[in-house]
Amino acid sequence: MYPLAEGLFAPLNQWYIAAWSKEVTRTPMERWILDEPVAFYRQENGAPVAVEGRCPHRSFPLGKSRVVGDNIQCGYHGITFRPDGSCAEIPTQTVIPNVCKIKSYPVSEQWNWIWIWPGDPALADTALIPDHFEMGLTDPSFRAAGDAYFHVPGRYMLMHDNLLDLTHLGYLHKDSFGADGGGVDQVPEHSEGPNWIESKFTQKDSECPPFFSHMLNYQGRINRTFGLRLFMPCLHYGADTSYRVGPDGENGEMIGSLRIYHAVTPATRTTAHYFFAAGHSWASDDPASAEKLVENIKPALEEDMSATRYIETMVEHYNGRPGELLLRADHVCARGRRFFERTIRAEQQGAKLQLAEAG
Amino acid sequence: MYPLAEGLFAPLNQWYIAAWSKEVTRTPMERWILDEPVAFYRQENGAPVAVEGRCPHRSFPLGKSRVVGDNIQCGYHGITFRPDGSCAEIPTQTVIPNVCKIKSYPVSEQWNWIWIWPGDPALADTALIPDHFEMGLTDPSFRAAGDAYFHVPGRYMLMHDNLLDLTHLGYLHKDSFGADGGGVDQVPEHSEGPNWIESKFTQKDSECPPFFSHMLNYQGRINRTFGLRLFMPCLHYGADTSYRVGPDGENGEMIGSLRIYHAVTPATRTTAHYFFAAGHSWASDDPASAEKLVENIKPALEEDMSATRYIETMVEHYNGRPGELLLRADHVCARGRRFFERTIRAEQQGAKLQLAEAG
Amino acid sequence: MYPLAEGLFAPLNQWYIAAWSKEVTRTPMERWILDEPVAFYRQENGAPVAVEGRCPHRSFPLGKSRVVGDNIQCGYHGITFRPDGSCAEIPTQTVIPNVCKIKSYPVSEQWNWIWIWPGDPALADTALIPDHFEMGLTDPSFRAAGDAYFHVPGRYMLMHDNLLDLTHLGYLHKDSFGADGGGVDQVPEHSEGPNWIESKFTQKDSECPPFFSHMLNYQGRINRTFGLRLFMPCLHYGADTSYRVGPDGENGEMIGSLRIYHAVTPATRTTAHYFFAAGHSWASDDPASAEKLVENIKPALEEDMSATRYIETMVEHYNGRPGELLLRADHVCARGRRFFERTIRAEQQGAKLQLAEAG
Repeated sequence: MYPLAEGLFAPLNQWYIAAWSKEVTRTPMERWILDEPVAFYRQENGAPVAVEGRCPHRSFPLGKSRVVGDNIQCGYHGITFRPDGSCAEIPTQTVIPNVCKIKSYPVSEQWNWIWIWPGDPALADTALIPDHFEMGLTDPSFRAAGDAYFHVPGRYMLMHDNLLDLTHLGYLHKDSFGADGGGVDQVPEHSEGPNWIESKFTQKDSECPPFFSHMLNYQGRINRTFGLRLFMPCLHYGADTSYRVGPDGENGEMIGSLRIYHAVTPATRTTAHYFFAAGHSWASDDPASAEKLVENIKPALEEDMSATRYIETMVEHYNGRPGELLLRADHVCARGRRFFERTIRAEQQGAKLQLAEAG
Repeated sequence: MYPLAEGLFAPLNQWYIAAWSKEVTRTPMERWILDEPVAFYRQENGAPVAVEGRCPHRSFPLGKSRVVGDNIQCGYHGITFRPDGSCAEIPTQTVIPNVCKIKSYPVSEQWNWIWIWPGDPALADTALIPDHFEMGLTDPSFRAAGDAYFHVPGRYMLMHDNLLDLTHLGYLHKDSFGADGGGVDQVPEHSEGPNWIESKFTQKDSECPPFFSHMLNYQGRINRTFGLRLFMPCLHYGADTSYRVGPDGENGEMIGSLRIYHAVTPATRTTAHYFFAAGHSWASDDPASAEKLVENIKPALEEDMSATRYIETMVEHYNGRPGELLLRADHVCARGRRFFERTIRAEQQGAKLQLAEAG
Repeated sequence: MYPLAEGLFAPLNQWYIAAWSKEVTRTPMERWILDEPVAFYRQENGAPVAVEGRCPHRSFPLGKSRVVGDNIQCGYHGITFRPDGSCAEIPTQTVIPNVCKIKSYPVSEQWNWIWIWPGDPALADTALIPDHFEMGLTDPSFRAAGDAYFHVPGRYMLMHDNLLDLTHLGYLHKDSFGADGGGVDQVPEHSEGPNWIESKFTQKDSECPPFFSHMLNYQGRINRTFGLRLFMPCLHYGADTSYRVGPDGENGEMIGSLRIYHAVTPATRTTAHYFFAAGHSWASDDPASAEKLVENIKPALEEDMSATRYIETMVEHYNGRPGELLLRADHVCARGRRFFERTIRAEQQGAKLQLAEAG
């Protein structure tokens, strides 16, 4: 489905960020992931659990039910399931039918995030999750914070389109970030690895955007490099670094570096979850400096939510197939879409092969 | 449609409760019944009228129009219809075309309820309506009251599923009724007649549920029998009776008996009307004792409404065909569904025969 | 689509009223016209502009973007379009692809209204717009005012049905206009020209409706003529004139004449825009007399909006094909519908011929 090719939604055998750690408690939470209802809760020892969010008996949502010990008990007739999805109890009978079970999802809690694997559990290797220390989330030499959650009122790929094409900064975020929003009108550089794709922008001897000026307590002209690396299929990580302009125009002393983390996870086919975190490399006397940084960026993220809602409305009006014009600056975005399409098609091909072998 | 077989909605040649008596006045009321708009009002002598709720001229809703004498006058261009559906006046012309008429529905007002017959009027025999005296509604030795109306945010059969399987009491109503909600974890007994189906539960030497304990002003252990009889296709009637535990464990002196009445009528294909009444057998100094009883039960009924909304959402997400697991305790519920399916299919078969004979 | 024949929506090669002059400013306004998004704004010299409301790059709404000089700049990535729809700038590249352009709509500002031509711009002749002086809008011997805008919660033809059949006055507007709403229960006279269709009613020696009585400061019986002329496909213009009853029952001295203007423009397939203005022929010391006249009529227009919403709901329930009964008084309305159908079919035939010639 747009902006991917017809019939392609999202890859299953991948790690997605599903929730902030603090969102998952001893009271179940319902959250839709890749168009399926999922119930999240914690066991008595604090371990997070994600299971199918629909009771197989009468379709009551387990995410609106109760936790009993380490298990989840359906709020309608009390059928109780273990974290592995097996049935622990049917109150009105002692025999548990084999078919009375639910799907259990592999989860991994890292930093402040809970990751989920919607596909085949046998393939769920936590080594595939991007290294949180390397990204600066768990490295004490950075200060990172984040608890910003947005329900995206549009299909998840519209947010990847947005993040893979930062040339929107100077226009969509003109009002929130001030002046030209810190934007840059250029075709980004592109680099790519087996499971990531990156765009990069460079500004030389340019005015320090008001937003950064205020944050870095710096007036004057700067060199700046920024960009985002998407670790497929969910997390965009980027550094936005400002330097004094050296005598020869090259980068002088670093003034400050901002770390940015955007996670996008499909909820339904036309909505998504969006998690935002940020960090900085510079010292600060304020213990809540990273939290304040996130707060200051939130108004700009609301602009992304509005844009996504507007575009989703347009796309649906044109029966899911709006006309589209690709520009040169879209080359990273276009490659990102191909990345998703290749991954989904490979999974579909694999599933067909498995069926053929089984048949 | 789920939870009935594909293509089956609701039987037509049946009496359904359409409204509380006090809802139907000299100002028309629009209410959808079996996916058709119906206009309800009273004639000058107080007799209730139910006619097609759409003016055949320009589709204006007659339920949002005016009563003039014994007739209903369309609020758009003034076309006026008699209680029998014939046209009394077209303001701009004297000739009344034969096709200018609307459907008139047989109605019957009994106790505080107005019953409607959506099908063939020639078959509408009021003797088919369950006996209100026998159920205790009009018997002065009981005290009954009721004016609780809920718009059900889901298809009507979900409410029959709910009422035909009271093993949900201990779970869905745990919070409202307290402790285990007065529930019982057992497979109900089943009995059935030509136009009814009944589930029955028995508890021996069990703790008196807080809700009943408070109501009956009784502390201690009890024997209890309860259940519901569905008079097809609308009204569930039940008694919930508590006894002191006799020396041999058998029923001792009766402590009190509660009468419960739930009526469920299809509104649209995915919504329903729900009417609740209750009564009691014991004496009370409080003239409003039955009204208070209904008030006390209302929070539990809100839980049924939430459950129905949740399940309707799930069912629609799975394109109207969610997976389902039938348990042993579901045998009455499953028989109830078959009852509806048989009745609808017999009507469809009859309609085909009539067409064949006419053809 | 109902109430027109299946598949027919609205004629394209026509002038429609799109907005009040004051609604179109230097801040873009999004308004849907004939099921397409349109962005309206003014150039630096005040000239109104209407262009396609969707950026061809990423479907962002231009009506929620920014004006820069005489151009409109997309609020997402800054692509900028001229009033003629050509692209003035793509911030990230110097080459402008030929396909990077949007549709520009012919517009014409007359009196307080901005007219738009949704079809082939080559055919947009402003001489086709009804003469505003003749209608009394720009003739200083009348006083006209208007700024009433309503978003119609139903398909536009339901409003034409409404205005082509004024026999609804006595019923739908009974409460707002008082007494019988100034209605008349008669089959209207009909007249028709190449681009207009008119209904006319005559009342002889009848009671002055309270609404007019108050407005004209006149008690007593009157002769009255009123009606509406629809200039296809958008503007209904009418005069409602009251006379003293002459000795022979014929029209005596004119007491007053009201001018009425209703404009209906399709927004989406099931919603519409509705603009209302009014004027009067009599002298008044109150400089805001026409504005007050419009204010006094607004409650009646709200009744039309409710009726349209009710009927739209009914029509959609019956899958867009409700049963319908045409009365004698509907003859003007029925001719009006045929007028639209003929016009749309002629356009479709013309489009096919063009394709055939091109092929």
